Amino acid sequence: MTAPPWLLALDFGGTKLSAALVEAGAREWRARRSIPSPPGADARYDQSTLLALADELLAGERPCAVGVSFGGPVNAGAGLVILSHHVRGWENIPLRDQLQARFGRPVSMDNDANAAALGEWKFGAGRGCASLFYVTVSTGVGGGWILDGRIYRGADSLAGEIGHIIVEPDGPICICGRRGCVESLAAGPNFARRARERLMAEPAVGAVLRELVSGNLEAVTAEHVARAAEAGDELAREVLVGAARALGFGLGTAITLMNPQRVVLGGGVTKSGELWWRTVREAARANTLRVPEMTVEIVPAALEDDAPLWGAVVLAEGAAEFQTL
Amino acid sequence: MTAPPWLLALDFGGTKLSAALVEAGAREWRARRSIPSPPGADARYDQSTLLALADELLAGERPCAVGVSFGGPVNAGAGLVILSHHVRGWENIPLRDQLQARFGRPVSMDNDANAAALGEWKFGAGRGCASLFYVTVSTGVGGGWILDGRIYRGADSLAGEIGHIIVEPDGPICICGRRGCVESLAAGPNFARRARERLMAEPAVGAVLRELVSGNLEAVTAEHVARAAEAGDELAREVLVGAARALGFGLGTAITLMNPQRVVLGGGVTKSGELWWRTVREAARANTLRVPEMTVEIVPAALEDDAPLWGAVVLAEGAAEFQTL
Repeated sequence: MTAPPWLLALDFGGTKLSAALVEAGAREWRARRSIPSPPGADARYDQSTLLALADELLAGERPCAVGVSFGGPVNAGAGLVILSHHVRGWENIPLRDQLQARFGRPVSMDNDANAAALGEWKFGAGRGCASLFYVTVSTGVGGGWILDGRIYRGADSLAGEIGHIIVEPDGPICICGRRGCVESLAAGPNFARRARERLMAEPAVGAVLRELVSGNLEAVTAEHVARAAEAGDELAREVLVGAARALGFGLGTAITLMNPQRVVLGGGVTKSGELWWRTVREAARANTLRVPEMTVEIVPAALEDDAPLWGAVVLAEGAAEFQTL
Repeated sequence: MTAPPWLLALDFGGTKLSAALVEAGAREWRARRSIPSPPGADARYDQSTLLALADELLAGERPCAVGVSFGGPVNAGAGLVILSHHVRGWENIPLRDQLQARFGRPVSMDNDANAAALGEWKFGAGRGCASLFYVTVSTGVGGGWILDGRIYRGADSLAGEIGHIIVEPDGPICICGRRGCVESLAAGPNFARRARERLMAEPAVGAVLRELVSGNLEAVTAEHVARAAEAGDELAREVLVGAARALGFGLGTAITLMNPQRVVLGGGVTKSGELWWRTVREAARANTLRVPEMTVEIVPAALEDDAPLWGAVVLAEGAAEFQTL
């Protein structure tokens, strides 16, 4: 008796837990569900909640393989969650073996940036590329590499940390402890803070942005900055351009070092409008080695929030194939 | 009748032409010869000279495959030399097909940084590494990636250009047209020039360095700077530290982005002594994302000038295997 050809995809997303079921080779979910991971949740809560969700989707059937995207550093080779920056209790959890025991099926796991890179590469904006760099720009900035048609994780599963390359040695302090990392300048909360600081220091500017938050400067988010910039607010435009330029500078460095065929940008901050995109592309170009042969494109992600989940499908496919070798 | 198991390795080195013959699987040359490529030589001269050298080594035998290292950008997939920065007449030369026709054997070719990376990885300081970044620091700064046990060339055969990532946006103009690239600060001729400029501007300092060139400041080379620094000359130490720091900063960025297991540094400038090495390592560490899992080592190359030639051997082995598939 052969196992049914269902692949189970799980996404431990930090603020959201998602499970989906897909037929091997298909491009549409058979079933898909998400629920929020409430503030204060721990690893145990996340696991039992997501497993209950998976059981509901499976309705008694067994998947032929399981793929997992995890929102934090993992050792993919060892199947180990190293840490979550959002949810406590995830230190050194052998999640792959636990899930393998639970489902009796092969499980493959990776961090969310690598999973999203795989998802966009196989099903999204990176289709047909031999090499791509997927970068997510949201509350943090992270990346995942597909090189010569395979995921590249690095010696310690830490490759892709474009958020923590330094682009302004005198820039703001980053959560990593150094100054002027891409993340400290280009991540949503960080450039929203920059806008707040400027609004407080310069009472005469930023009228549109002030109005958007009814004068409550503490409430300013990256989305407000982007909307005010689109409406022509000078302060918002300057802040947005500064953030986009820092990201573009970092991308130019990554492109010069690795010469990927395509760079795919995902995450909430990439919805910041035309000015943001134009600035990112211009800064990347200005900071890329100028040779006529360098042909990279920088394009928006296609799968939105589902990129890690589709990546988990690719991981599950790999796990299933590995078993049948 | 099977072909004799000789592999022919050729190195078009810009200032030097080398050929060597090695038995497949061996670690010592059966024969090896180099001759200088004189100033004013062109592509035709280089080719006929190196082919004559190869014929001499072969003494009527036929190699089973040929590997080629070329000192300049190549399209490895197409077997095309794009350009030489040193020798004229190399624009768009289908060198692989020409050599294949000449020897009637499979030929594989790559640029010298990639070839040296392959050589160090298979026979030198990178043995046993799944991933490494080879960086040559000499009249220029270039790099080659071995990732997950394979050479990674990039979408346009341009990966590894660490010499042209920007580390000081207000730094000196680089030959690439931008400012503050690693190469503009860390390459030998560039930091020698920096030393000369300081010697001219500050007549009271740099006594040791001045003495080394008998007061002829135009004669100052990177080697003089390194020797003066070892002898305690403050100006030379400062210039050397500045150059090493720029390189280390760039390496930290590359390490954060790619998490290689090992970084191998080759080229003449790496003979600059303990201060240079310590500064490179410290600057790289300071500019690398600080997580306990990141375990990179930065080590000296082991094969000296022969690294590209040994890399050509690896390329020849690959070409021979490809043919027997």
